[in-house]
Amino acid sequence: MPRMALGLAYDGSFWQGWQTQPGGLTVQDKVESALARFLDQPVSTICAGRTDTGVHALEQVVHLDTQADRRLESWVRGLNALLPDSIAVQWAKPVSDSFHARFSAISRSYIYIVRNTRVRSPLMHGRVGWVYHSLRLAPMRDAARRLIGEHDFSSFRSSQCQAASPVRTMQEVSIEQYGDFYLFKFRANAFLHHMIRNLMGALLYVGQGKQEPDWMDELLAQRDRRRAAPTFSPAGLYLSGVEYPDEHGLPSRDASQALLTHVGLSWPTI
Amino acid sequence: MPRMALGLAYDGSFWQGWQTQPGGLTVQDKVESALARFLDQPVSTICAGRTDTGVHALEQVVHLDTQADRRLESWVRGLNALLPDSIAVQWAKPVSDSFHARFSAISRSYIYIVRNTRVRSPLMHGRVGWVYHSLRLAPMRDAARRLIGEHDFSSFRSSQCQAASPVRTMQEVSIEQYGDFYLFKFRANAFLHHMIRNLMGALLYVGQGKQEPDWMDELLAQRDRRRAAPTFSPAGLYLSGVEYPDEHGLPSRDASQALLTHVGLSWPTI
Repeated sequence: MPRMALGLAYDGSFWQGWQTQPGGLTVQDKVESALARFLDQPVSTICAGRTDTGVHALEQVVHLDTQADRRLESWVRGLNALLPDSIAVQWAKPVSDSFHARFSAISRSYIYIVRNTRVRSPLMHGRVGWVYHSLRLAPMRDAARRLIGEHDFSSFRSSQCQAASPVRTMQEVSIEQYGDFYLFKFRANAFLHHMIRNLMGALLYVGQGKQEPDWMDELLAQRDRRRAAPTFSPAGLYLSGVEYPDEHGLPSRDASQALLTHVGLSWPTI
Repeated sequence: MPRMALGLAYDGSFWQGWQTQPGGLTVQDKVESALARFLDQPVSTICAGRTDTGVHALEQVVHLDTQADRRLESWVRGLNALLPDSIAVQWAKPVSDSFHARFSAISRSYIYIVRNTRVRSPLMHGRVGWVYHSLRLAPMRDAARRLIGEHDFSSFRSSQCQAASPVRTMQEVSIEQYGDFYLFKFRANAFLHHMIRNLMGALLYVGQGKQEPDWMDELLAQRDRRRAAPTFSPAGLYLSGVEYPDEHGLPSRDASQALLTHVGLSWPTI
């Protein structure tokens, strides 16, 4: 049966995460409901990364199988006409049945945006994390580099995590400051449940001077969620890209560019 | 009675405009309700510019009179704890009773942000206007400069407008392009009801090639709302600043900086 890949963007603050639930208030429920109307048949989707409640996507990738024949450009326009304002298909591409949105992915990239100000911003509520106490960049960068490589991330894994192994390979953790804003980028082969929000909690503790950078080494070694900082807000977290082998021919999209385009944060140096 | 001025920011997409209404779902209702709790007494406010449903504020200025004695910093933190997430006080300042948020204002500045793309962005929904057809910058700029100066703006005035005169002095209409985004700035002594949204409709008609730039001269001369383009969406419109005489000592805030800070659009050249 022909297989189609879709690139999706969404504002997660309106939805109870990606994964389908009985109440139907998830991104997957809305996407599959739009697909069912568009294709005149029930369809189920597989996604690259199941985002939590309140987490956004600049570039979520899903695949689905269908016999229904639709013109390629109508996949984007037709589905977007059926989707809520807070969810939109960005591209659609036919793929071979060797492509799997979850299992073919080489890595996932996430961005976390923090605003460090004394007064909260009503216009960024739900889309940017807010830290009141002053942050220091250098110690956060020092802490972040300790996360690179293969580690047991048990200290940053939620108790509900269903992954078979707590070991993940972190390829990138970078932090850039732009005035009041801090932009955190994470890239790994895969992430555990709540892993980035838990890492953010710890990095921000270091940034506020509540812990020293080498605390990150201790947390990794302790493999105990109870030792780390509280889980940070989902508000500033964006699934920003999923990398696949070139053979699948998916649109190659730069996460920074997607950030600029979809969130409207066009950082001067990006 | 001592008078206090407040700078407010809000996401207008959650509210039925500034001005109080029986249902209580306006920004003024929420601000006065927070003030009543903070000051332990009913308070009424006067604002600089009554924004419509869906229109945002980076910098709305209001004043109020009260005998209640509160520490200056608690005005910001205390009120923000009582306000909805989509509304926040940015600063508070005691002023003399010669200050009036509406009548002392020399000019008002608004910003309109348009995104010109084929695919809609779910993450900017409600906060940026969207135009599907390609826009051309030069004709829009040519049309915009014809608005500068004192004009009868009847062609851009809603039928519900209660202003005594349709004459306004436009001090600035500038348009900058940043990739997919167009940033329109308007500054005038005051604006008529729906005036900017109606001007945006006409400027975007010119930008799409539906009309030539000199159509703007015709519309001004005709003084007839039925000749102009449809009222454009409130989604991308922000009250970005109110200018007062220096003697009142209000925080001098640059609208562009406010845009960067509150909307998160940090344009490279601003």
